[in-house]
Amino acid sequence: MRVSIIGATGYAGAEILRLLHGHPKAEVVHITSESHTGESISEIYPHFRGIYDMKLESMKDVVRIGQESDFVFIGLPHGHAMGVGKALAAEKTRLIDLGADYRFTDPAIYEKWYKVKHTHKEARSVYGLAELCREKIRDAKIIGNAGCYTTASILALAPLAKNHLIDIAGIVVDAKSGVSGAGRAAKQANLLPELYDSFKAYGVASHRHTPEIEQAVTELSGEPCVLSFTPHLVPMSRGILATCYAHLKDGVEPETVDAAYEKMYGREYFVRLLGRGGYPETKNVRASNFCDIGWHIDERTQRVIVLSAIDNLVKGAAGQAIQNFNIACGFDEKLGLDHIAVYP
Amino acid sequence: MRVSIIGATGYAGAEILRLLHGHPKAEVVHITSESHTGESISEIYPHFRGIYDMKLESMKDVVRIGQESDFVFIGLPHGHAMGVGKALAAEKTRLIDLGADYRFTDPAIYEKWYKVKHTHKEARSVYGLAELCREKIRDAKIIGNAGCYTTASILALAPLAKNHLIDIAGIVVDAKSGVSGAGRAAKQANLLPELYDSFKAYGVASHRHTPEIEQAVTELSGEPCVLSFTPHLVPMSRGILATCYAHLKDGVEPETVDAAYEKMYGREYFVRLLGRGGYPETKNVRASNFCDIGWHIDERTQRVIVLSAIDNLVKGAAGQAIQNFNIACGFDEKLGLDHIAVYP
Amino acid sequence: MRVSIIGATGYAGAEILRLLHGHPKAEVVHITSESHTGESISEIYPHFRGIYDMKLESMKDVVRIGQESDFVFIGLPHGHAMGVGKALAAEKTRLIDLGADYRFTDPAIYEKWYKVKHTHKEARSVYGLAELCREKIRDAKIIGNAGCYTTASILALAPLAKNHLIDIAGIVVDAKSGVSGAGRAAKQANLLPELYDSFKAYGVASHRHTPEIEQAVTELSGEPCVLSFTPHLVPMSRGILATCYAHLKDGVEPETVDAAYEKMYGREYFVRLLGRGGYPETKNVRASNFCDIGWHIDERTQRVIVLSAIDNLVKGAAGQAIQNFNIACGFDEKLGLDHIAVYP
Amino acid sequence: MRVSIIGATGYAGAEILRLLHGHPKAEVVHITSESHTGESISEIYPHFRGIYDMKLESMKDVVRIGQESDFVFIGLPHGHAMGVGKALAAEKTRLIDLGADYRFTDPAIYEKWYKVKHTHKEARSVYGLAELCREKIRDAKIIGNAGCYTTASILALAPLAKNHLIDIAGIVVDAKSGVSGAGRAAKQANLLPELYDSFKAYGVASHRHTPEIEQAVTELSGEPCVLSFTPHLVPMSRGILATCYAHLKDGVEPETVDAAYEKMYGREYFVRLLGRGGYPETKNVRASNFCDIGWHIDERTQRVIVLSAIDNLVKGAAGQAIQNFNIACGFDEKLGLDHIAVYP
Repeated sequence: MRVSIIGATGYAGAEILRLLHGHPKAEVVHITSESHTGESISEIYPHFRGIYDMKLESMKDVVRIGQESDFVFIGLPHGHAMGVGKALAAEKTRLIDLGADYRFTDPAIYEKWYKVKHTHKEARSVYGLAELCREKIRDAKIIGNAGCYTTASILALAPLAKNHLIDIAGIVVDAKSGVSGAGRAAKQANLLPELYDSFKAYGVASHRHTPEIEQAVTELSGEPCVLSFTPHLVPMSRGILATCYAHLKDGVEPETVDAAYEKMYGREYFVRLLGRGGYPETKNVRASNFCDIGWHIDERTQRVIVLSAIDNLVKGAAGQAIQNFNIACGFDEKLGLDHIAVYP
Repeated sequence: MRVSIIGATGYAGAEILRLLHGHPKAEVVHITSESHTGESISEIYPHFRGIYDMKLESMKDVVRIGQESDFVFIGLPHGHAMGVGKALAAEKTRLIDLGADYRFTDPAIYEKWYKVKHTHKEARSVYGLAELCREKIRDAKIIGNAGCYTTASILALAPLAKNHLIDIAGIVVDAKSGVSGAGRAAKQANLLPELYDSFKAYGVASHRHTPEIEQAVTELSGEPCVLSFTPHLVPMSRGILATCYAHLKDGVEPETVDAAYEKMYGREYFVRLLGRGGYPETKNVRASNFCDIGWHIDERTQRVIVLSAIDNLVKGAAGQAIQNFNIACGFDEKLGLDHIAVYP
Repeated sequence: MRVSIIGATGYAGAEILRLLHGHPKAEVVHITSESHTGESISEIYPHFRGIYDMKLESMKDVVRIGQESDFVFIGLPHGHAMGVGKALAAEKTRLIDLGADYRFTDPAIYEKWYKVKHTHKEARSVYGLAELCREKIRDAKIIGNAGCYTTASILALAPLAKNHLIDIAGIVVDAKSGVSGAGRAAKQANLLPELYDSFKAYGVASHRHTPEIEQAVTELSGEPCVLSFTPHLVPMSRGILATCYAHLKDGVEPETVDAAYEKMYGREYFVRLLGRGGYPETKNVRASNFCDIGWHIDERTQRVIVLSAIDNLVKGAAGQAIQNFNIACGFDEKLGLDHIAVYP
Repeated sequence: MRVSIIGATGYAGAEILRLLHGHPKAEVVHITSESHTGESISEIYPHFRGIYDMKLESMKDVVRIGQESDFVFIGLPHGHAMGVGKALAAEKTRLIDLGADYRFTDPAIYEKWYKVKHTHKEARSVYGLAELCREKIRDAKIIGNAGCYTTASILALAPLAKNHLIDIAGIVVDAKSGVSGAGRAAKQANLLPELYDSFKAYGVASHRHTPEIEQAVTELSGEPCVLSFTPHLVPMSRGILATCYAHLKDGVEPETVDAAYEKMYGREYFVRLLGRGGYPETKNVRASNFCDIGWHIDERTQRVIVLSAIDNLVKGAAGQAIQNFNIACGFDEKLGLDHIAVYP
């Protein structure tokens, strides 16, 4: 398959390139960057030297790029993928957007949280969280790849929500991310001396991944979900850990919880169940497409506490995109993704 | 005042030494370590070279050490301070224990969570969280210095609990600590390559700081508190951030929350209110005795989310101990502690 | 090919497993650990969960293990591989030792620096630095895999030494390594709080990689080399940067230096030349088998300063071992190793 | 003494503020920032909250600021302090410039390396490395505070140079710095994800601290010094380690080297000699004004290798400036600086 990346110089775009190098059925034909048009990608990312030295093009030619590609990955800031989607609506190429533009069933929610008018509401797009949306992804024209925090959070909560084991009203997701999630733009706040040996929260009660988690939990449980989501910044490069709190419904036994996880994920290659009492660590999934999940029953408070760990740039972005690509192409989902985490 | 430190080679004991160097009214007369008896403290901690080069003694002579000290700081693992407390019960010296032995009003709670029999139940001890227990500390014979996670958590929740602004039943404390909190013992799990660029939870629904937070919230609110507490390990040396979730009672206005914080901490030097919407960062309190607090109202879920940051070795251990020492001596609380955080 | 790993629970042994997962022509048949015999490797390293869950055996059965393996990788501390080598001397299996036992042409040098008697001097072993020793590796029974610091240092200096461009007498190698190089044994000095936000040298004028670099430079140049080598510990997990200083011989032009590098490495896949003025960074080779090299001419001092970066666990250990394995098997050298660095 | 800081929002300027808080004889009267004029310093640096909340002024009023200050600290980029120096030449106030404008005896060297015309050549300025230039500092109108790399390097080499123990021709200084040395300006290259878990060199054979070290060694030894200086970036916030290599002259005994260090620094409070075989670590001086020095004799190569560690923002900038201020005022040099390193 011929694939192109629109917006290849962000961390997620570069990670797609890294992973595609080991993909036996994908050939990268175009990569674009408006700020680095004409430069080689290995000047921008020297770790590609000798492997990817191709030139970055401008996305002004997006129609031609689309025509020459079976799949187009979009790694643009939110609000910019819609234009690509519209421009390529009539072309045969299919799209995987790593941003938020195509993630919401209800464009009004997108517009409210992202403060941008949605200009491509007629798009036939599906949500791109592979384990939960596999069937829809197969034939999708446009895939709205799940976000990083949301992937970790939804995979953690899904078995509980789907099986009605928890009070949907009382969910708290306390999530922690490495700094690569903040992107590669030069910002004083993200300089190493500012963040090193420090820890902080941000976006309390206002982060844009909140409605995305709520949409999924609502759909899984059939009950309207409104939850508290708090992101934090960890002084590290990669990785997300989500700590999810929910009240167990009366009479739910620990074994019922265990069975729900086993049933939903027992055959999933990229979701690894550490079981009741298990402790995922982000290093155990670093640079891999795995999501490790462990859960705990707090009998004193009748809560279930679920921990899930992913690499925000792989299962939370580029890896998930390639997994979706594999599904959409009818390939083995593991193609290009069957890497063990880099530890230590 | 002549002070001694029993167990001076742990991180907390060493931090007491660091801070006392700038204290105008304290003189260190004895320091002990069973594993390094006879060695100079600056061999164990070369950063003390030229400042503290005194020899470490054995605590076998604890009675004599107590007799020659006005105050004894205890930096031993839990279960070991009780013996010191009993041995010095009849002496004039006063004690500040940095461990858990003297923190609980009800020894049964201690025994249940710490799996150790309490052998000094008759002790006249007080809880050592300076801002909340100042009056009792003044005359105490034994001060059970508040724990690190607990200091951050209790200071964050106290105004809400005391003023009955929240449902005591539904509190969640999601806390994150630097690795110095795990002590200086050689453990594979705490090697740099194991923890660097990684994040994980531990002790879910079972960490021993849980009942300590509950004890304080129960006392402040007058309602029995059972809460969920989850500690996490951040790949950094120092610092704790606690993210506390609670439901606001019906009709509680944001301004009422603000006023509660202002009333309780407005005149406290070491508690800095960042206000509603404020974001504490551990680096802003690193190596200082400050506790920075910000709070957020999540109107969608009717929750208040409180963030508090401390240095676990200062306000969470050695700094708090010296603050308590200052109170107990009738000194200005800031003596030896009036340091700005080390940033960046 | 059937391969086994003696000493699979050290960082290097585990890294071999990680890399072999993507190797199309190697099957892992036995892994051993004396301290964890009978446990699953994924209990020791949870990042292997679902991929390698096989049991660790004891090396007491090393002869049988050797008989059932085409290749045996040895990841034991120095001094212990010799016994394996002797035990398997009569078997058909071939050996790659990641330690120092088989690296030296002159066992007396080994004995002097490692303070251990060499008990297998009759071994037919070759030095395992792939780019320089390829021909000998093809048929070797025993390969003494090059060390981590030494790989970075020798690859940096080889073109200069071989082409007689520098004074062999005046070489200084100032090298810096991530902490994984210190192994996984529990040591207080390697705890995260001890090393984080800190930098130090160690082993000045006494590190055991010194004679290994000297042996290679001596052989390449034909002149006896005695140099200064200083290792340092960087607060990071992986990576080595070597900064090498040497005086250029009179009249050596910059272009001659450039040509020497180009000639020696121009066709090497795993050595990437950043050219004169280039700056390697360890992150650009992290988790990959590349060695990035850049060089600088200091006209004021008539020195050439060469910088080289590798991942100490890959090109400095496990990756190099697999590269040597590929050579010894007549495979494409890139099998199992063609990974792009994990960045950021 | 009334002191002001021109350029208070850089890391060095902020560090002066941090240290002056504990200085009993200095009162901060003005602080300036052109980019943040009118804002409170605690908005820019929240760790100052409650301690320094004063407003930042513009340096347009530098003459008035100078008239109202006994001492002016300048924390501007190089090339900008000269203007302040000229503007205040006729005023009584004295100046300490933390930049390079006043460090060179020969302005031509400054102009060559800094590519800026020196516009205040007539200034009566002295070099501000306290231990070596104490006498001249006492009465200086303008003090050109020593640079960070240079302080570590010169203090390491001074006893060898002054006592003619080494070949001045062959010195190599391989230095490593935390990222705060690169300043607080937003740069992509200094983002945490770019530098974390990575190590690299920069400025090989071209860094501007080179001529500053050479000037000092030349002056101390009486021989013209041209040396190789290589700076590196360590993934940490603070700290510099300099590894200095020099050939010992024939017949120089180790004890002679020891005696030279002892003689020069034996009575210096802020230089701590770890002795022959000693290993300084940057964490042992973090946030303190100490410079720790250890030296090693490599008998095989007849080299002496000197290691020195400082905190780049304290002894390498703000602490040294205050030490110079104390000297210039006739105060005890330790005023405001007698802090133990923050460890761990």
